[in-house]
Amino acid sequence: MLQTTAYKALTSDTLSTRLGELTSLTSRVGTETKDWKIQEVGDGNLNLVFIVEGSKGSVIVKQALPYVRLVGDSWPLPLYRAYYEHEALVRQAARNPGTVPEIYHFDSDQALIVMEFLSPHTILRHKLIAGERVQGLAAFLGTFCARTAFRGSELSMKSSDKKTDVSLFAGNIEIPAITEALVFSDPYFNAERNHHTPELDDVVNELRQDVELKTRVQELFMSFASNTETMVHGDLHSGSVMSTATDSMVIDPEFAQYGPMSFDLGMLIANFLMAYFSQPGHRSEDTLDEYQEWILAIISESLVTFEDEFTTLWNNERTGMLYPPTLFEDQGHSSQAALQSLLNRIRTEAMGYCGIEMHRRTLSLAHNADFEEIKDNTVRASLEARNLMMGRELILTSDQILDAGTLVALARQYNKGDFL
Amino acid sequence: MLQTTAYKALTSDTLSTRLGELTSLTSRVGTETKDWKIQEVGDGNLNLVFIVEGSKGSVIVKQALPYVRLVGDSWPLPLYRAYYEHEALVRQAARNPGTVPEIYHFDSDQALIVMEFLSPHTILRHKLIAGERVQGLAAFLGTFCARTAFRGSELSMKSSDKKTDVSLFAGNIEIPAITEALVFSDPYFNAERNHHTPELDDVVNELRQDVELKTRVQELFMSFASNTETMVHGDLHSGSVMSTATDSMVIDPEFAQYGPMSFDLGMLIANFLMAYFSQPGHRSEDTLDEYQEWILAIISESLVTFEDEFTTLWNNERTGMLYPPTLFEDQGHSSQAALQSLLNRIRTEAMGYCGIEMHRRTLSLAHNADFEEIKDNTVRASLEARNLMMGRELILTSDQILDAGTLVALARQYNKGDFL
Repeated sequence: MLQTTAYKALTSDTLSTRLGELTSLTSRVGTETKDWKIQEVGDGNLNLVFIVEGSKGSVIVKQALPYVRLVGDSWPLPLYRAYYEHEALVRQAARNPGTVPEIYHFDSDQALIVMEFLSPHTILRHKLIAGERVQGLAAFLGTFCARTAFRGSELSMKSSDKKTDVSLFAGNIEIPAITEALVFSDPYFNAERNHHTPELDDVVNELRQDVELKTRVQELFMSFASNTETMVHGDLHSGSVMSTATDSMVIDPEFAQYGPMSFDLGMLIANFLMAYFSQPGHRSEDTLDEYQEWILAIISESLVTFEDEFTTLWNNERTGMLYPPTLFEDQGHSSQAALQSLLNRIRTEAMGYCGIEMHRRTLSLAHNADFEEIKDNTVRASLEARNLMMGRELILTSDQILDAGTLVALARQYNKGDFL
Repeated sequence: MLQTTAYKALTSDTLSTRLGELTSLTSRVGTETKDWKIQEVGDGNLNLVFIVEGSKGSVIVKQALPYVRLVGDSWPLPLYRAYYEHEALVRQAARNPGTVPEIYHFDSDQALIVMEFLSPHTILRHKLIAGERVQGLAAFLGTFCARTAFRGSELSMKSSDKKTDVSLFAGNIEIPAITEALVFSDPYFNAERNHHTPELDDVVNELRQDVELKTRVQELFMSFASNTETMVHGDLHSGSVMSTATDSMVIDPEFAQYGPMSFDLGMLIANFLMAYFSQPGHRSEDTLDEYQEWILAIISESLVTFEDEFTTLWNNERTGMLYPPTLFEDQGHSSQAALQSLLNRIRTEAMGYCGIEMHRRTLSLAHNADFEEIKDNTVRASLEARNLMMGRELILTSDQILDAGTLVALARQYNKGDFL
């Protein structure tokens, strides 16, 4: 269908010529390629993203680039990651239908996916900076995390299918290596790629001198690198969620890998906490409290929904080899204590990953717009410091965050702190 | 070199015809195939094992069978496991040279490995039943466990190499499935394949009613199934060690997989504890105490050696991405607290796996000769009961076994117990 099989990056000018005969595309946007409006909108670092609009409708064309865009072409990345992104989308669609974009076409050679154009959805992070609310957001995200975690694990899957999938995804080495470097290593020493707001120097030095903190981070790193419990999204921040006022979808699973069931939940909560702490940089006093409390409610409800949905799945879909009903219910024994113990472990780990994500987004290469868009260095630094210090507490006391209430109370406390 | 490529099981009669032109074999036993003495000596369940003796020397020819021998041909097993056994032997030889048999020839189609004949080594389990001592045994085994655990992990290996290897070994599904069923599931309910000494019924019922115990076992099972920390031997019991009075070697890594660093250590200690508890069935009072204390010294020294050797490797070979010197020593920060925390976690897990192995060898399909060779049911049951009850305590209080002394004190205590 494509004119070439050797990889070549698309441009707005070549797209209609190269993809104009693709029926999976023309059936959705129309065959009159000369009328297509083509716009490159990628704001990520790894891909080209085009909106192709025709008389019949619009689609997204996403193509992997052979390098990390953020750092020029100095960090080459294999194109096969589009294959894993495609595989991840297929699994997420099966495990939580209707929550990720529909795939119309996949071309492995061109590292290219044609998929559903979400409209009028916009990136959730921008909404959080703008102070917009999204109905049903926490229920959507908590459910997404629970279903993908549970249904991708050996609590649910046939063990042989899951192991075959682990083998498949273990072939993806370079993408996890980015997370390993930028998330778990760089923030905790003076890595060359790092940058942070200069006013944070003292706080950053304090963190990097904290051996207990670094030890706990390495424990979580070891688990991230070795624990193949389930297929995780791997980069579930507010830039990987697109929403309208009432609907949300998860996008961009190009960092998908087998990892801990706690990982996506922890990443997600971290990004809401960063949205929370950054609000004084985006909003005047009259709406600040109310909007911050809305974000805390999202955090709280996401965690509660995760645990509720996980419990429902545990009670109704425990068909894998782990914690089998054969050993519990079939013997007249409740498995609820076992479930609670597992949920406690997941929550403890999630709090640890949450703290690490809060650190790396302020200290490592890739920062969040939530803080970056605050132009006043002094204001930004004071808010980032709250974020860094709460991150540390979460990492060090992760097993003491016993419920959502404790977590949001801690956030309110750090939100009042002056650490500079 | 072989006359056929389609798999065919060797027999003592066909071996010399089929392998007689293999120079890697004839160079070691001699070319006069008519003079070869061929003896099938396999006492395992999955393989044919031949000693081939000629004028120049002897070799072992090991060939995988397409089914589990213990249960007839009702449990088919893929022949490709010989490939993984070969790969595991190569890695173990690299990580702890001179501790596994040398490989002379590998034939993937015939699922066949020609390897070093260990002589006058005999299976360690038989020595332990006979009351024989082996010099240097604990130092050998503790070092083996530490080196294979450390050097096969991302504490040492380049992450991309380790992940490639995880992908390779994740292709082996059926062999881990045996461990998953026989070790972690069957012992804890009335599985069809199970059998146990009838006099144990009350104790067995008590264990199977213990929901807290089953929960902890499932936690360890989940970690075994998902945690790809290092390449483990996977079946490191006293039947997988061959010794003379002064030398030992590890054999039969056909259950090798990526798993927890604690697994081999736990399995090994379990098998020494079973040797310990079974001694009253094999020995008269005059030598009993002394030999039992020798076994406890082996357990204690194995654990101490493991931790000492792991510490040496940590201090000298920490070249992987986990706990990098960049974050510790290079910053003037000691990593010894991090090491101690990791060793504590490994020991805690090992105690849990130890208890599970003690259970499954008394309750599940494959029992140990240590107990099985005790003909008197009443005697055997009383000793097996001590083993089962200590196994439970290890599983439930694994985090309280802080050193080798605590472990052997517990063994002495259970050795006096009457649980029937």
